[in-house]
Amino acid sequence: MDAMETNLKRMGEFFSEGPTRLRPHYKNHKCVALARRQLAHGAVGITCATLGEAEALARNGIRGILLANEIAGPVAIERFVELSRITEIMVGVDNAHTVAALAAASTHARVPLHVLVDVNVGMGRCGVLPGELVLKLAQFAASKGLHVRGVLGYEGHCVRMEPGPEKVRAAHEAMDRLVRSAELLRAHGLPAPIVSGGGTGTYDISGRFPGVTEIQGGSYLLWETDYAAVCPGFEPALSLLGTVISRTGNERLILDVGLKEISGERGVPVLKNAAGARLRKLNAEHAVVDILDSNFPAQVGDQMEIWARYSDATVNLHRKMYGVRGDRVEETFLIED
Amino acid sequence: MDAMETNLKRMGEFFSEGPTRLRPHYKNHKCVALARRQLAHGAVGITCATLGEAEALARNGIRGILLANEIAGPVAIERFVELSRITEIMVGVDNAHTVAALAAASTHARVPLHVLVDVNVGMGRCGVLPGELVLKLAQFAASKGLHVRGVLGYEGHCVRMEPGPEKVRAAHEAMDRLVRSAELLRAHGLPAPIVSGGGTGTYDISGRFPGVTEIQGGSYLLWETDYAAVCPGFEPALSLLGTVISRTGNERLILDVGLKEISGERGVPVLKNAAGARLRKLNAEHAVVDILDSNFPAQVGDQMEIWARYSDATVNLHRKMYGVRGDRVEETFLIED
Repeated sequence: MDAMETNLKRMGEFFSEGPTRLRPHYKNHKCVALARRQLAHGAVGITCATLGEAEALARNGIRGILLANEIAGPVAIERFVELSRITEIMVGVDNAHTVAALAAASTHARVPLHVLVDVNVGMGRCGVLPGELVLKLAQFAASKGLHVRGVLGYEGHCVRMEPGPEKVRAAHEAMDRLVRSAELLRAHGLPAPIVSGGGTGTYDISGRFPGVTEIQGGSYLLWETDYAAVCPGFEPALSLLGTVISRTGNERLILDVGLKEISGERGVPVLKNAAGARLRKLNAEHAVVDILDSNFPAQVGDQMEIWARYSDATVNLHRKMYGVRGDRVEETFLIED
Repeated sequence: MDAMETNLKRMGEFFSEGPTRLRPHYKNHKCVALARRQLAHGAVGITCATLGEAEALARNGIRGILLANEIAGPVAIERFVELSRITEIMVGVDNAHTVAALAAASTHARVPLHVLVDVNVGMGRCGVLPGELVLKLAQFAASKGLHVRGVLGYEGHCVRMEPGPEKVRAAHEAMDRLVRSAELLRAHGLPAPIVSGGGTGTYDISGRFPGVTEIQGGSYLLWETDYAAVCPGFEPALSLLGTVISRTGNERLILDVGLKEISGERGVPVLKNAAGARLRKLNAEHAVVDILDSNFPAQVGDQMEIWARYSDATVNLHRKMYGVRGDRVEETFLIED
């Protein structure tokens, strides 16, 4: 709880100082109770990645939702329309197919729908290329009756770069593409008040770039060891507690925590407070810990803590988290999507 | 459904022919309905990896459960005692600490507890080394009132070896250690009727090794592309359906399926029926598909199927699976643990 609150406060303070606001990403924690705390610390709304996450937010009364992703297909369109009936929500669009489908659904259901044009600012995943294509899609959307609220772009190719001038240059280049796209829309009579960029790894660069109105960072809250090297300034707040279920002499310990409980998708996580031992690998249900110091005290039945290396994907493996302060569980957080 | 049933039948037939039986591993599918089908095809019981899985089996009336793992700590011991009240269950033991704790709990609760000594047959994870240590732990367990039913050993270092004489040699060596351990117990008056080995990758080797009484293979049922190369003879039965949410010219498609939905823990999965395209990488919520052939037809809104590369870890990301035959969903399988 202490680490999480430190992160909450630190990010809240950063965004209280500039014109850019934070709309933090729900995918990091998937906890409505934590989203509420982010809103209380100045967040302008909540970003999410899936319709399921948006539905969890909406049914808990959260407004100002940005679904920072594309959707497609009749079921997804219908779910978005239903969300738009009950909350304030925007979704990214990067193609005429989905724009046409959203517009038809909006007309049919008589529900106004809000979109941001997703711009490929250099990551090369979703998004339309900056320039004429952004304008064309936005004009098409507006002509069909959708509310074009602005642009969205994720500089995902920058967020895990080492800090330094190269990272600053790359993030500025990406945000420049985004801001210019918004300006192009405005020059053609589309108001485009929202210019939404970035993640935690570039919050302090993109979040001070002139013309960016909001930032989507999420990982800052629970944090993770994989981010720590490239984006210092936050505290790791998410760990897994494992029990030693086997010890083979002074060679190794086995914990009852594996990749079904703590994500290994970005590599093997590290132990907390364990000089003298090293987590070597994760199997499905086991963590294999090499003992480096024969005095390492842990025995069968003892508990050991592992830092999340990839917090988003670790949260995704669970239905709840425990908020611990000192030796006490202070709060249980439901994971909802 | 067709592929799953082919696998079910094929494995059932293999084990109907020899003295060795199958106690298939629940961790592959986590579906009670599928466990029941395995029992109907001759399985002698169900193996599982966690107390949560054992509880799911027990509350659904499944008997003959082998928890093929170690447990430790008072909460785990208590859960195992409660399971032993309501079903037939055995657990692996590899240390005196847990044996003493189980024995004390058994006496206190007046519930007989059944254990197998877990033997390290060469994998180097849990388990005691073959020979005197196995005997010593079994005698200690028996002296404290636990029911020692035999031995358990997982040749996890062999299951993903390429087929061939080297694999056969390694698996035989492992099973020889296991069988000799059981014989040692019997020579000292402990009956040890159960000798439980291996996984899907060695079922046809370990499952014909004289003295092995049962095999724990699980992955054969849903199968996975990662196993196909090293253990032919089954059909891939588990796939994820993704929707194309973005297409950038003839360069790439983006699907709304990422590593939060399909495990990338053993590498990037492959597309089903997609000559002309290749899944390049998984992000949290996206699959990035390179278009290799400019005539590749998929457009935004179309669906594409991805084979599970690691079925256990993919099942672990979901709460249900759909049993599809032809174009019809025939059954919904709840994932329970």
